[in-house]
Order: sequence, then C-alpha cells, then structure tokens
Amino acid sequence: MKIITISREFGSGGREIGKRLSDTLGFVYYDSEILTQIAQETNLDKNYLDRISEKGLPSYNLHYGRTFGFAYNQTAVNALVAQQKAIKELSQKGDCIFVGRGANIILRDYNPFKIFVYSDLRHKIERCRERSTAENFMSDKELIKQIKQIDNGRSKLHDLMSNTKWTDCDNYNICINTAGIAIKEIAVFLAEYIKRWFETQL
Amino acid sequence: MKIITISREFGSGGREIGKRLSDTLGFVYYDSEILTQIAQETNLDKNYLDRISEKGLPSYNLHYGRTFGFAYNQTAVNALVAQQKAIKELSQKGDCIFVGRGANIILRDYNPFKIFVYSDLRHKIERCRERSTAENFMSDKELIKQIKQIDNGRSKLHDLMSNTKWTDCDNYNICINTAGIAIKEIAVFLAEYIKRWFETQL
Repeated sequence: MKIITISREFGSGGREIGKRLSDTLGFVYYDSEILTQIAQETNLDKNYLDRISEKGLPSYNLHYGRTFGFAYNQTAVNALVAQQKAIKELSQKGDCIFVGRGANIILRDYNPFKIFVYSDLRHKIERCRERSTAENFMSDKELIKQIKQIDNGRSKLHDLMSNTKWTDCDNYNICINTAGIAIKEIAVFLAEYIKRWFETQL
Repeated sequence: MKIITISREFGSGGREIGKRLSDTLGFVYYDSEILTQIAQETNLDKNYLDRISEKGLPSYNLHYGRTFGFAYNQTAVNALVAQQKAIKELSQKGDCIFVGRGANIILRDYNPFKIFVYSDLRHKIERCRERSTAENFMSDKELIKQIKQIDNGRSKLHDLMSNTKWTDCDNYNICINTAGIAIKEIAVFLAEYIKRWFETQL
C-alpha cells in the first residue's frame, strides 16, 4: 500500500497539494472524511473532533495542596485514540493521501512518503485572503492571530504524539516552502518525485 | 544573479547534489574554492578555516571571581568575517551554488534558492562507507561519532549566525531527505524545480 501524508501550516496550500496529488496519482484523498467516519463510530460531534485536531487537546490544571499537575480531558483522549484507529484502517484500504491529523506519526510503521508544506507569513495571509469571502472578512491582525493559533494547535498536537518539533525536517521525506511559486507547479514536480520514490522502495 | 545554497548533514549527499546541479544548470560550484580565496586574502591556513566551518568557533571560558563568561577566539572570528565577505563577493560574479559555510544566511538578502539535504543515520553511515578507503577505515562507533561531531559543529555555526535551528525547514525553500533514493534521481528532479522557481521570481 502506498501512503502519502501531508502536514501543513495553515494557509500554505497543503490541502490543494493533497487534492492535486490525489488527482494526478489516483490515490484516495482523506481529510474531513476521517472525521465523518470517527464521528459515526464514536457518536461524537464532527465539529468537536475537528477542534481537537486543529487546536490540540483541552486540558485542565490540577492541584493538591502544593502539588500542581495537569490532565487531559478524557473524552478528547478517547476521540484521538478513535481517530488514530480510523486512520490506520483507512490507510490499508488502498493507495491514499492523508492531510493533517498527525498521520505522518500514526502511520510511520507503514513507510509513508511524508510531506511538510509551509510558507512565510506574508504568503499565508495572501492565500487566506484569496479564499475568504466578504462574510468572513478579517483584518490583517485577526488573520495573523488565527494563522498563529491554528499552527500552534497543530504543533502542540504533533508534540503530544512525537518527541520532535513539528517544523523539524527530520520528520519528513520532503519539506516544501510554497512562498513565491504556484501550488499547481509544485504539485506537478512532487507527483513525479513521489512516483519515483515509491518505485525505488520496492 | 541566480544563487543556490545547499546546507547539508554530513554523509547525506549534499555535495554530490551540488556538483550535479552545477553540471545540469551551468552554475559555478563553490565549496573549498571559497576557502582557497579566503586563505589567500587573510594569510590563514586553509585547513584551519575548514575546521572553523565544520566544527564552529573555538571558544574559551573566562572567570573573574565568581562571574563566569565565555569568549570566542579573535582569529577565528576574523576568519569567519573574511569568509562572509568572500561569499558575498563570489555570489555577485555569476549564477552559482554554494555548499555549506552558512551561505543560506550570509546571502539571504539576495533571494537565493535554499536547499537543506539530510538523511537518517543508517543511510549516512552507508554513504560514508561507500566513500571511504581501506586506509581511513572506521568502526561504526567511530563513524557515528564523527558524523555527530561534524553535524553538531555545522549546527552550532548556524546558531551563531542565525536565531533559528539548523534543521528547521523555515530556513529553506526545500528540504530533501535522501534516505532510500539515489542522489542522481533527486538532482534531476531538483534541477527542474529550481529552473521553474527562478522563472517565477522574475
């Protein structure tokens, strides 16, 4: 089974790269589809699961006298476990692409091709602006806050699942900075490279 | 002027990628050539300069009573400054590729295409073995020690010149993990991608 995982900074174009690779390579694309399956299996709300994936686990502080501690919400932990199980199951159904959800770590034993997609803040803002509508208009300040919050959540989730830093290239087979080049062009090159990479793994 | 910089872990194949890109793209390749020019200008020994580039700056501890401090060797600092000047000068002579020496940081204002080449320890050991001769045979343990020492030196030099982590992908346009795929194949793909990248920067 050939598996591609895409980890991506918010606004960097990772989702578009995933869709394009899926079209070119004929791999099944999983993103919010994962959440639908988990929501069915766990009777949890899809938006709740999405929040956990994007912002990390909700936690609360504990203290007993002078001892301080910290615990995760049990429902959230159960949801993450269910998500990991679902990702593993889906990955075995056929060649596929997972965007986000820590799939690079969850599927590491299956030798996936792991991509990290990132960009600089200016280009991420531009990209978010292109996708936004009049109704959800945000000021630059609000947008920057949102980008940082979401990336911070994704980074925290990575930390929770792995002992390494989210943006450290050691976690990936290739890291692509999308600043100053069209996603379409990147996807063309990546598809060729990935095809070759899988051939050499046989 | 089109500039490519290659930062690379020891044994990952970064030097070979640089040579191959130089052949394919017709860019001038700079590596130890930089040292020769600096050695001439500063009357410093070439091997000494090489040691600084590979192992970071020699430093010594200071203490006055109970106050501890730390200082860099002035000759080494001067050599690094000379190297930075030489790299900037060479970069303006024509399209070129710099391997190592912190060129990605030194030349950041010239919008270079910045590559980071890395690999896992197993593949780095294999690669070092392929290049070694009977005379300089090392045990696995010695080889691992050498790889870690050199990478640690390069990482420290990066820290000294920049506020970011050497292996953090934010410092580069692309990061390529060479484990499990031939350098030759990577170079072909990279050359195409870089050509396209420079076109889109115009």
